[in-house]
Amino acid sequence: MNQPDVTTPTSDPSAGPTPGRVAPAPPVRPSAGGRAARRPLGVGAARITGGFWGQRLRTNAATAIAGGYDRLEEAGSLRNLRIAGGLEDGEITGMIFQDSDVHKWLEAVAFEIGRTGDAHLLELQRRVTAWVAAAQREDGYIDTVHEARHGTEGRWTNLTFEHELYCAGHLIQAAVAQHRCTDDRGLLEVAVRCADLLVATFGPGKRDGVPGHPEIEMALVELFRETGERSYLDLARFFLDRRGHGVLQAETGVNPSYFSDRVPVAEARSVEGHAVRAVYLAAGVVDRALETGEEQLLAQQEALFADMMATKAYVSGGLGARWDGEAFGAPYELPADRGYAETCAAIGAVQWAWRLLLATGRETYAEAIEQLLLNAMLPGVSLDGAGYFYVNPLQVRSGTVLDDPRNPVGGRQGWFDCACCPPNLMRTLASLAQYVATGSAQGMHLHQYASGSYAAGGLRIDVETGYPLEGEVQIVVREAPSGPTGLSLRVPRWANAASVEIPEHLEETWADGAVQITGTFTPGDRIMLTLPIEPRLVVGHPRLDAVAGSIALLRGPLLYTLEQVDQAQGVDIERIEVLPGEGADVRPAPEGLAALPGGDLPALAVRARRRRDEGEELYPVWAPRARSAAAGDEEAEVNEVLAVPYFAWANRQLGPMRVWMPVADRR
Amino acid sequence: MNQPDVTTPTSDPSAGPTPGRVAPAPPVRPSAGGRAARRPLGVGAARITGGFWGQRLRTNAATAIAGGYDRLEEAGSLRNLRIAGGLEDGEITGMIFQDSDVHKWLEAVAFEIGRTGDAHLLELQRRVTAWVAAAQREDGYIDTVHEARHGTEGRWTNLTFEHELYCAGHLIQAAVAQHRCTDDRGLLEVAVRCADLLVATFGPGKRDGVPGHPEIEMALVELFRETGERSYLDLARFFLDRRGHGVLQAETGVNPSYFSDRVPVAEARSVEGHAVRAVYLAAGVVDRALETGEEQLLAQQEALFADMMATKAYVSGGLGARWDGEAFGAPYELPADRGYAETCAAIGAVQWAWRLLLATGRETYAEAIEQLLLNAMLPGVSLDGAGYFYVNPLQVRSGTVLDDPRNPVGGRQGWFDCACCPPNLMRTLASLAQYVATGSAQGMHLHQYASGSYAAGGLRIDVETGYPLEGEVQIVVREAPSGPTGLSLRVPRWANAASVEIPEHLEETWADGAVQITGTFTPGDRIMLTLPIEPRLVVGHPRLDAVAGSIALLRGPLLYTLEQVDQAQGVDIERIEVLPGEGADVRPAPEGLAALPGGDLPALAVRARRRRDEGEELYPVWAPRARSAAAGDEEAEVNEVLAVPYFAWANRQLGPMRVWMPVADRR
Repeated sequence: MNQPDVTTPTSDPSAGPTPGRVAPAPPVRPSAGGRAARRPLGVGAARITGGFWGQRLRTNAATAIAGGYDRLEEAGSLRNLRIAGGLEDGEITGMIFQDSDVHKWLEAVAFEIGRTGDAHLLELQRRVTAWVAAAQREDGYIDTVHEARHGTEGRWTNLTFEHELYCAGHLIQAAVAQHRCTDDRGLLEVAVRCADLLVATFGPGKRDGVPGHPEIEMALVELFRETGERSYLDLARFFLDRRGHGVLQAETGVNPSYFSDRVPVAEARSVEGHAVRAVYLAAGVVDRALETGEEQLLAQQEALFADMMATKAYVSGGLGARWDGEAFGAPYELPADRGYAETCAAIGAVQWAWRLLLATGRETYAEAIEQLLLNAMLPGVSLDGAGYFYVNPLQVRSGTVLDDPRNPVGGRQGWFDCACCPPNLMRTLASLAQYVATGSAQGMHLHQYASGSYAAGGLRIDVETGYPLEGEVQIVVREAPSGPTGLSLRVPRWANAASVEIPEHLEETWADGAVQITGTFTPGDRIMLTLPIEPRLVVGHPRLDAVAGSIALLRGPLLYTLEQVDQAQGVDIERIEVLPGEGADVRPAPEGLAALPGGDLPALAVRARRRRDEGEELYPVWAPRARSAAAGDEEAEVNEVLAVPYFAWANRQLGPMRVWMPVADRR
Repeated sequence: MNQPDVTTPTSDPSAGPTPGRVAPAPPVRPSAGGRAARRPLGVGAARITGGFWGQRLRTNAATAIAGGYDRLEEAGSLRNLRIAGGLEDGEITGMIFQDSDVHKWLEAVAFEIGRTGDAHLLELQRRVTAWVAAAQREDGYIDTVHEARHGTEGRWTNLTFEHELYCAGHLIQAAVAQHRCTDDRGLLEVAVRCADLLVATFGPGKRDGVPGHPEIEMALVELFRETGERSYLDLARFFLDRRGHGVLQAETGVNPSYFSDRVPVAEARSVEGHAVRAVYLAAGVVDRALETGEEQLLAQQEALFADMMATKAYVSGGLGARWDGEAFGAPYELPADRGYAETCAAIGAVQWAWRLLLATGRETYAEAIEQLLLNAMLPGVSLDGAGYFYVNPLQVRSGTVLDDPRNPVGGRQGWFDCACCPPNLMRTLASLAQYVATGSAQGMHLHQYASGSYAAGGLRIDVETGYPLEGEVQIVVREAPSGPTGLSLRVPRWANAASVEIPEHLEETWADGAVQITGTFTPGDRIMLTLPIEPRLVVGHPRLDAVAGSIALLRGPLLYTLEQVDQAQGVDIERIEVLPGEGADVRPAPEGLAALPGGDLPALAVRARRRRDEGEELYPVWAPRARSAAAGDEEAEVNEVLAVPYFAWANRQLGPMRVWMPVADRR
């Protein structure tokens, strides 16, 4: 494991300026007239240059995004565009939302060009943008698979299932990213024509409708922000207002719960149904509230998010307990056995939380974003950036058979027929720097700790840290305004013993999940934040029956898990019980893991022993506890189990895995 | 609660002889040349006349089967037959397996006519049989929906999904039942023509194929038994032999696991995939082994069944943990939160276990049948016989929204679009007497305890019992052979303290899960078996993490559950922990339950208290146990919770329900 060099900040050479580059820019930019409590950093003002995330961003660029072009070609997604555009003969194939894979990849490409100015990606961007433009009809309509399948007269006839608005939304988001991050306006022109057609088609007195899969809502709000065209915001409001009034059910007889369509948006008290739809919808609602200043709606969204994290999130942050319907379950229905926790649901929740953070400034959202990124999204991509998980369960048992390509026992996949997750990961990672910090009248707010350079309100800082693998975060002020300002550093809830060293001329205030450093900063000021990332053990809420008597292991923000491959000879993770009394010890990464890119990760060891009470009977008769586990058991051989960060699982030999570890005295 | 009158056996008057009646007959009748260790009782030799099951059989006849005709008419299933037969104009509608609902209902009708000679049912049987016959084509083909959808040229083109062989199987089973139980040969003639077409179509050198949904296998074996036509058995063997060789995957690219098609039948070591398919297939395999005497195949099926009950069955016996794919999960993947446990899977497992019992004589299969019938099948029908559950989870949480008609929070349904379960329940209940006893060279074997009359090998007995609600079983010998014989009474595994009173001239031997009574019986001999049905508490196997720290409550063979509706003011079953040290006390049925037909069921009370450690946090930090629960907690108000038999849940006000109860010291 590398020791962090906290005295000499270094930069990632690949992040240096390159011809063709413009600058990284925010994916969400609330209007000045809105009610945002925090502002994203401006164009070019946030760069991740190294450290934990820098490593992952390089892999994302070099393998995932670069290889994404080939995957899209193999899947027929690019060919569909060329055929629709009359550039190639053939048959349009694939999922009804196939175009959106290209749009999401284009969004990732745009962020990546902003980040590194990659000339090859710029060339690909121009090529693919031209194909998208060619596939657009004169009136602005664009959806290759839908058009091939249902023709012009079939447009907008099945909003429940056919994803035209979803694809349009991803097109718009990609276009905004491209416009903000690169010199190219090509996609924005396509998106505006598409959005104008939507405005002409839908709304009061026009076609009624509710998008089966939310996405268009946040896209339209963002396009309003980018262009100033108010009708886009109005249409987003229309789609949101029509939801929960039986429109989808009347059209296609569907069960409204799946579509977050059972009650009006403002009346939802708990997320339900298809998890990705639910969180994408919520992100759009907050986008709307950011622009309209609807306080009650924002308060409802805050309560909804809090309810989700308090009753419907896995310890990973993973969302959606059910495979059937890819859906949220009832409160506390979170069995590790069969967690779905789709990668895209984590990404959608990051988008939701980010908008809530912008709206309220509350660090609880930044903490959720960190958890979601590290433990719910990152497990969805392999360390080498080439393999993906669609679902992210917390346990894989021996004897699980491969019955679905999403089933982890099939290993990570290079792509999926339903390929929503891979390009979603790409665009999120490529824009990650924007989630690190915000600005406000109080100065700069550092929400995440990633080595890089960030600027807001005249304050420019360099951050150097081994976080989340180590707890020290060094901040060096490079530029400062002439007068007093503030720099707020998030302090995670688990970091009770956090401390900060600051220059004498500055002051610190601890409150609201952050330490606020105030005063007149000067270039060269050094601030050292120390977050105690000692291993810690958590249990489930008493209502979360499925993990009763088990503990999960974390260190700092990272969730850990047991993989069979890491255990000593004779240690079977399905037959152990842990003795958590002495906590966990940090150990070097297992060799096989350390050899992988970004795999030199601290492991954790916990005392454990082989369970001795394992009979054949599935439901033996209960007996009162005969002995106290605390009294020890001299006959049982005490050993230990070795845990690795959950996001790094399934990068070597596939086998049994479990996040929740039974405690020795659980029955 | 009724006290049993153990001195004066009484009969159910509705079960007396009636014009039109032939006699109840076995649904499975192994050939004399086969390897059966036990023989089903002959035609007319098994009658349930009263008691617990008598009550349910009356409801099944009066409400379920009689009303089934109307349900089938409303669903269009009968109309489909009339349209296909040219008796009515219209459009054939419904599921691809719609015909099978009629066939299963006809099978139930036949058993019921055998049981009671119901003249109205006989009239309905003749009417519907005529419609089935009219819908058959000259060459024997019959499948109304398939033909309407795919025409003659579309026959047998998609065995994976289109259920033609499944429907044929149910037709054949119904025809055999009709032939055995009533005077009518009408359906048998249809079935023979249909089976002859299958023999002409499929087999070595003819059309290759594997039925996507097993069912035809056991049907063909039974038709062989009924007709002596060997080609039916050979075709069943062909279908079984072709399974597991990639045929389905080659035809339709499906994942073979779902179809129990991943490995050859004889190589399966653990059930997997769609639960109903898996157990129907297995029942067909044992049927084959019963006829062919393939010992190795039988041994494999015994091991497969044992593995299922040891690693993949809920405490109810319910099978199929997963909603997605209605499938078995990995070993020990049995979260109560989201159990699927389809009613049909329990019924299929009864069929499998019954054939294993006939083949081996092992009482473990009789015990499994009892558990499956009482706790996994019976919960699928309401006490009044008019409402059904398709899935049977072990927990329903507050906050669960209705997202699927199968979801129990929607309440019991009168019928389903996919209506496999209701007529499956009907036919199983109507033929239940046949599962009570068997005969062998050793005499009679009483496997289940149901008030009625049973005869085998010259021994005829009357049984009178309040079982499973009470533990006394009185047997009176009515006829006996002149020489020595035996009567074996099953002793459940939980009944360690069972006792039996026998006349002095007889002898008892306890072995292999039964007490064998031998000697020269004489009419008037009375035998009294006492099974201790004290409440007992069970836990889950240590690998069944999802129920760790919880207990389930049983009394005799009956599983119990908590319903919110039965609890005292202020007792929330989602916030309690039970104090099981003093066991459970028997209480009268709650008033609302006792008022329902067959609802006068003993309840059980367990000490419990409100959990005090319930915070807001979903994943709080683990702390070593601070206090011993055994030491008591004088501050916590100790109350109790009231449990009712699981099969009787959801007959009143729907609300939270839980089988597994957290124990006070579980963390």
